Amino acid sequence: MRLETNLSHSWTYDSVRRTMNPSPFIPQSSDRVYLDHNATSPLALGLVEELVRWSRSWGNPSSIHWDGRAPKNLLREARQRVAKLVGANPLEVVFTSGGSEANNLALKGFHGARAVSEVPGERLADRSQFIVSAVEHPSVRKTVDYLTRWGVQVRVIGVDRDGQIDLDSYAEALKTPTALVSVMYANNETGTIFPIQKMTKMAHEAGAIFHCDAVQALGKAVVDVKKWGVDLASFSAHKFYGLKGAGCLYVRQGLQLESLIHGGGQERGRRAGTENVMAIAAMGWMAQAADQIEERAGAMKALRDEFEQILLARISDSRINASPGKRLPNTTSIQIDGIDGETLLMNLDMAGFAVSTGAACSAGSPEPSPVLLAMGLSRKEAQSSMRLSIGWGTTREELARFVETLQVTVQRLRSLRDAVKDEHL
Amino acid sequence: MRLETNLSHSWTYDSVRRTMNPSPFIPQSSDRVYLDHNATSPLALGLVEELVRWSRSWGNPSSIHWDGRAPKNLLREARQRVAKLVGANPLEVVFTSGGSEANNLALKGFHGARAVSEVPGERLADRSQFIVSAVEHPSVRKTVDYLTRWGVQVRVIGVDRDGQIDLDSYAEALKTPTALVSVMYANNETGTIFPIQKMTKMAHEAGAIFHCDAVQALGKAVVDVKKWGVDLASFSAHKFYGLKGAGCLYVRQGLQLESLIHGGGQERGRRAGTENVMAIAAMGWMAQAADQIEERAGAMKALRDEFEQILLARISDSRINASPGKRLPNTTSIQIDGIDGETLLMNLDMAGFAVSTGAACSAGSPEPSPVLLAMGLSRKEAQSSMRLSIGWGTTREELARFVETLQVTVQRLRSLRDAVKDEHL
Repeated sequence: MRLETNLSHSWTYDSVRRTMNPSPFIPQSSDRVYLDHNATSPLALGLVEELVRWSRSWGNPSSIHWDGRAPKNLLREARQRVAKLVGANPLEVVFTSGGSEANNLALKGFHGARAVSEVPGERLADRSQFIVSAVEHPSVRKTVDYLTRWGVQVRVIGVDRDGQIDLDSYAEALKTPTALVSVMYANNETGTIFPIQKMTKMAHEAGAIFHCDAVQALGKAVVDVKKWGVDLASFSAHKFYGLKGAGCLYVRQGLQLESLIHGGGQERGRRAGTENVMAIAAMGWMAQAADQIEERAGAMKALRDEFEQILLARISDSRINASPGKRLPNTTSIQIDGIDGETLLMNLDMAGFAVSTGAACSAGSPEPSPVLLAMGLSRKEAQSSMRLSIGWGTTREELARFVETLQVTVQRLRSLRDAVKDEHL
Repeated sequence: MRLETNLSHSWTYDSVRRTMNPSPFIPQSSDRVYLDHNATSPLALGLVEELVRWSRSWGNPSSIHWDGRAPKNLLREARQRVAKLVGANPLEVVFTSGGSEANNLALKGFHGARAVSEVPGERLADRSQFIVSAVEHPSVRKTVDYLTRWGVQVRVIGVDRDGQIDLDSYAEALKTPTALVSVMYANNETGTIFPIQKMTKMAHEAGAIFHCDAVQALGKAVVDVKKWGVDLASFSAHKFYGLKGAGCLYVRQGLQLESLIHGGGQERGRRAGTENVMAIAAMGWMAQAADQIEERAGAMKALRDEFEQILLARISDSRINASPGKRLPNTTSIQIDGIDGETLLMNLDMAGFAVSTGAACSAGSPEPSPVLLAMGLSRKEAQSSMRLSIGWGTTREELARFVETLQVTVQRLRSLRDAVKDEHL
């Protein structure tokens, strides 16, 4: 692929080629550039041979005979590795089918346990308020909406134009007796990182429990639930180069939860159902990369920051949504005037680039991103926005190709728009 | 492996060798004999290369760009195949993380929807009774127990000494206004098959909805939810040579369910969370074997029936629990006087044979099987019972080896017991 000569000096073909590495991730197609890592990430290449190996350990981990031992050992090893990755004790890790289930278990499980608790958390049973931010994932928002049916009062804390939470409103909200606060580690669309440690401290001072949806954190930030101080935290394997079908909920020791899935005694009675051994083992396998995260996150940030500068320089009338303050090192939400995000996405897709306009789980919806609207963007501004999320395997060469294509595509779409306008004159 | 000459004539080495085939399933170890297929089944050998192929389709099926298309197609194909396997319409299949989640979704989802229903199922909201059998899986029993907290009245219908449900009690119970009946297709421990079609008809005549936990049915019986007439039916992939982490709930068209996992719009809003594409694809892949099931089930039944005759002939003072009437073609629950089931299991395990004393999910519990107790067996009788469940890959040679070992082991354990008795005299 020939690169245009008008690339900024640091993005010449030579400099780019020097940084190219054989990707350690599985490509779906060699000529595609994947910039949607917040939706899901490619599978780590080394995992594939492990899958074949693990497929021999097909026993039921609950069986007490020999065939149950290999899968049981895989679970135990994965639990230790994942616990280490997030800074928890292995007994505090409850494996689930993914991040959405973990969020549901956290919120409904907490609500269910406090509803029947007769001794320690009793005080919480009298508190009907749950606090969430205005930019939570649907698996949190819809779950608290559901809980209103059972007497929960939901208080939503807004965010400012930069996507950051309004801490004054939060402090104000905490004056009402609050059972639980659920705020994400970082937003999936803008990358904004919330001050979880501080917010947890405030919640605890007000006697509330704190849940953090940290689904976007793995691989992008060093996670330490003990340092954060949270009581509950949700994680997903498939956002961190693992398989779909596994995630986990960190449950601080001593905190009671009602099961979301009742039945067998798996996960110490907190989540029934035969364990998804293969996906859990894969999550544990990736957790071994914990000591690479700081460096990888730093490298992504440097690449992303450079990428954003070049984007802004090359695409006129564009701006980064939520750029000041702490953000995930891999996420860019960009607004491009006069462009419809969905149309741009489809044009880029045909040219070989995967980007998104918002959360994958609401893809296809004609509505503009609720996250961007919550930040005060107009419908038009939200609809002319696009999310780019890079990963450990993303190269400068890929981003250079992307910028080239984006520039041409935006020019073309804007000319078309102008032509349509002229016609209507 | 040399077989003893005192095998019954049809189980000589020669006749056995003629029936030996290279197993189409992955062995955990070549010298093991696996007789615990009701706990989980080996992975179909052909699936392993598919896993490698599917690992390239790692995209998020909800993404609207190219990388979402391959996984979305895998889901669509799997949904069609699984629907065909169970006799449903593809839109009536809701994929879950497994059988336990499917059972929880059926019962809690039905309860949740009727609690808010304002139009058609309204009548059901006034009915507080749920009927279950005394031998349901914990994922049904514990779920209805949980629902009692929300006003559900649970009526448990007993079974007789043969494990069969008491239809008179059932008819009597239905005289009380009933919202839902949940009875399994076949019991996981004894293999007893329940008259689902008849029971569904009776439930419908009484205005109740019928859920069937059919987790043990796949691969052992021809499944046809429309013929059964049920409204809801749960299935699991890993009992049918697939991966752990997938299952599904059949939801009759028109029946409203509240989600168990709230969030994104996956599964037409009935189950949020990024789909476990690989395990679902594997479930669909196995579903292609639907047209083999009748023949395979027939072959298993012939093998199992012969096996039971030889067991009873060779092991003195033994009897089959729940033998008369319809049973799964692969399951044998056998009671051996003077033997502790757990001790026997461990001895057989060391000799290379995997059997169980009850459901895997309650393995390790010192309590005797609640299923056998519900049938009226004494604690002692229940504790001297063992479950054997064969699979598509089980050979007569394996069963012949098993019978040899069992006979020797039972003799040894009984001698030990007699020696201990003598010592105490």
